[in-house]
Amino acid sequence: MALVVQKYGGTSVANIERIRNVARRVAKTYDDGNDVIVVVSAMSGETNKLVALANEMCEFPSEREYDVLVATGEQVTIALLSMCLQSMGYKAKSYMGHQIPILTDSTFSKARIEKIDDKKVREDLKNGTIIVVAGFQGVDREGNTTTLGRGGSDTSAVAVAAGLKADVCEIYTDVDGVYTTDPRIVPDATKIEKISYDEMLEMASLGAKVLQIRSVEFAKKYGVVVHVRSSFNDNPGTLVMKEDADMETVLVSGITYNKDEAKISVMRVPDKPGIASILFTPLSHANITVDMIIQNVSNEGYTDMTFTVPKTDFKKALKIVEESAKEIAAGAVRSDENIAKVSIVGVGMRSHSGVASKMFQTLSQEGINIQMISTSEIKVSCVIDAKYTELAVRVLHDAFGLSKKDVKAE
Amino acid sequence: MALVVQKYGGTSVANIERIRNVARRVAKTYDDGNDVIVVVSAMSGETNKLVALANEMCEFPSEREYDVLVATGEQVTIALLSMCLQSMGYKAKSYMGHQIPILTDSTFSKARIEKIDDKKVREDLKNGTIIVVAGFQGVDREGNTTTLGRGGSDTSAVAVAAGLKADVCEIYTDVDGVYTTDPRIVPDATKIEKISYDEMLEMASLGAKVLQIRSVEFAKKYGVVVHVRSSFNDNPGTLVMKEDADMETVLVSGITYNKDEAKISVMRVPDKPGIASILFTPLSHANITVDMIIQNVSNEGYTDMTFTVPKTDFKKALKIVEESAKEIAAGAVRSDENIAKVSIVGVGMRSHSGVASKMFQTLSQEGINIQMISTSEIKVSCVIDAKYTELAVRVLHDAFGLSKKDVKAE
Repeated sequence: MALVVQKYGGTSVANIERIRNVARRVAKTYDDGNDVIVVVSAMSGETNKLVALANEMCEFPSEREYDVLVATGEQVTIALLSMCLQSMGYKAKSYMGHQIPILTDSTFSKARIEKIDDKKVREDLKNGTIIVVAGFQGVDREGNTTTLGRGGSDTSAVAVAAGLKADVCEIYTDVDGVYTTDPRIVPDATKIEKISYDEMLEMASLGAKVLQIRSVEFAKKYGVVVHVRSSFNDNPGTLVMKEDADMETVLVSGITYNKDEAKISVMRVPDKPGIASILFTPLSHANITVDMIIQNVSNEGYTDMTFTVPKTDFKKALKIVEESAKEIAAGAVRSDENIAKVSIVGVGMRSHSGVASKMFQTLSQEGINIQMISTSEIKVSCVIDAKYTELAVRVLHDAFGLSKKDVKAE
Repeated sequence: MALVVQKYGGTSVANIERIRNVARRVAKTYDDGNDVIVVVSAMSGETNKLVALANEMCEFPSEREYDVLVATGEQVTIALLSMCLQSMGYKAKSYMGHQIPILTDSTFSKARIEKIDDKKVREDLKNGTIIVVAGFQGVDREGNTTTLGRGGSDTSAVAVAAGLKADVCEIYTDVDGVYTTDPRIVPDATKIEKISYDEMLEMASLGAKVLQIRSVEFAKKYGVVVHVRSSFNDNPGTLVMKEDADMETVLVSGITYNKDEAKISVMRVPDKPGIASILFTPLSHANITVDMIIQNVSNEGYTDMTFTVPKTDFKKALKIVEESAKEIAAGAVRSDENIAKVSIVGVGMRSHSGVASKMFQTLSQEGINIQMISTSEIKVSCVIDAKYTELAVRVLHDAFGLSKKDVKAE
């Protein structure tokens, strides 16, 4: 008998009929002889409705009260799913974050889970109860309701799996698993059978939206095996797990892209100590995350600095940078919102040379100019003109042999 | 400086604009130098939507999960109202039932409040915070969410006022106060300035819907002065309070009516000990409340029994009674859904005779037949044909001099 944690996202519980489907799936897992904990999101659309209410109420809603408001979405789902399981003849019991409790810090609207108490849940499991947990929410030490940020239910599920030492954490979603790239762009993208935590982290950071990044960090930290699969069929999905020897044989596991960043360049920056700090400290104080940073080789005591910021913070960032540029007597500030970041990810890169140059060559053959480059041990990212995004993804997917036909041919 | 508890019902917080109005009213009370605790209901319509979801999910939703579901309605309102007060520059903080905590028993969906902890709230009041409390909900000793039954926010407010020893508990609603009768039937019905707890209890039990009965019991038990008034104007409303000498001078304070009951008669019931128990025990086991019971004088060892039950339980009750009647070899079972109960209420009755006979006479003058009568120290109720309800209310209102012109003339 195994302990299985299953997480169902908003589209899987979007209406009464879909909640019934989820209940049947949960019941089947229970009937197969497993203990089951289900973590659910709000019915799709509900969280957006609640956020709209908050924004209609006032421009800058208090984060404590925002969390009280949006936490109601998951509360509705756990009640409905528990009712459904009970009406099917199963013992079921809903748990809100504060009832387990799922203890978090007090960073409202993006709280971090600190501890999960397993006592009450374990008692209920012992007497054959299916546990239904509200994802996305927790409680801080003062008893305030907190939420974990968008997509936080993934993290709830992995944290519950870690806290209860579950055998597997199944994340049900509306796709069959993690793909080598976005199948809307490359129709013969392949489902990845298994992927390492580090690769999944890079994929998630770089734009693959199937799992919340923090949930992957959590899974890695506690060694939770995550199975990403579809709630609409029984196909096996993608296992996110510790790196194994098989994975190293694959050069590139996936191609990601991201159109959510904008580029800012500061020209003729005096090249002396402390300049970078003057440019970037005010951005950090304004809570703006700077992603890629490139500094050209110094030329006659001057250099150019280029970096990317989220598009949502672009205007704010530009204003701040223009002031800083004046302060350090730099040259013009240039900006570009029409960029995309295309990345290749794979643990195999560590032991194989030539992967980056193959990427650059592939892009150049299509006449795609590379504006910025950033690399880590297991990924290479290039910033390009946004209009080439789809083309770049397709040719890279082909060049690294990720299509179905290539995989089968091997 | 006084401590004021204010309760706003669903229509007063029905949308963002109305919540803003409530916030302005709360702020004014605070600016006048008072400590303020606000208790709010769900936005009108929300609870019905949640109940509809539960009923769509399954026929008999578990009561524990039902409470988890419907408690979300009030949670949404407290978050929005707190945000609004904060955006106006006030310190405000929302509290759910489990956060105060408002401790109840475990009778899900109609829990009774056992204790209110004043520690956290008092600390917040001390530092000038306006407290916003979710009505209708509490928590039991095991940490389960409970709700207090329809209209439970009134009880929450009075209980909070009792627990915090507030100076007054203002119940804001969409009418100006408690009227001598329903103004939709008698346009010149008078607003009652003050009314005793016992009269208010009778009025609420007999059909006046302005306050939940349990809230009045609570107010009486703890001596909380309740001020029922409109959230749409500044008119003084009705004070519900301890009986005083003034009140005794009024013969009848109000006329109520209720069309929510049905009548069942069992003919030729053998008149011997234990028969009533055989008839009524199965009804009580089925959780059906029997209201009025009348047993005729025995005739040749047989009697007739007539009683009323809520219309919502009528069919179930009839089936049970038909079985019991067979068991005791009684005669026919007759029933009538077209009845109404019309009542006169007043503490003045205790010291004045002839009030009941004046009621019977007034009805008879209009040709209205009285089918059943029940009395207490401070009320007389008559069951009549439903079609005469409005006529009966009007003539009684007139006969006991409750119209505006009469009151002014005195």
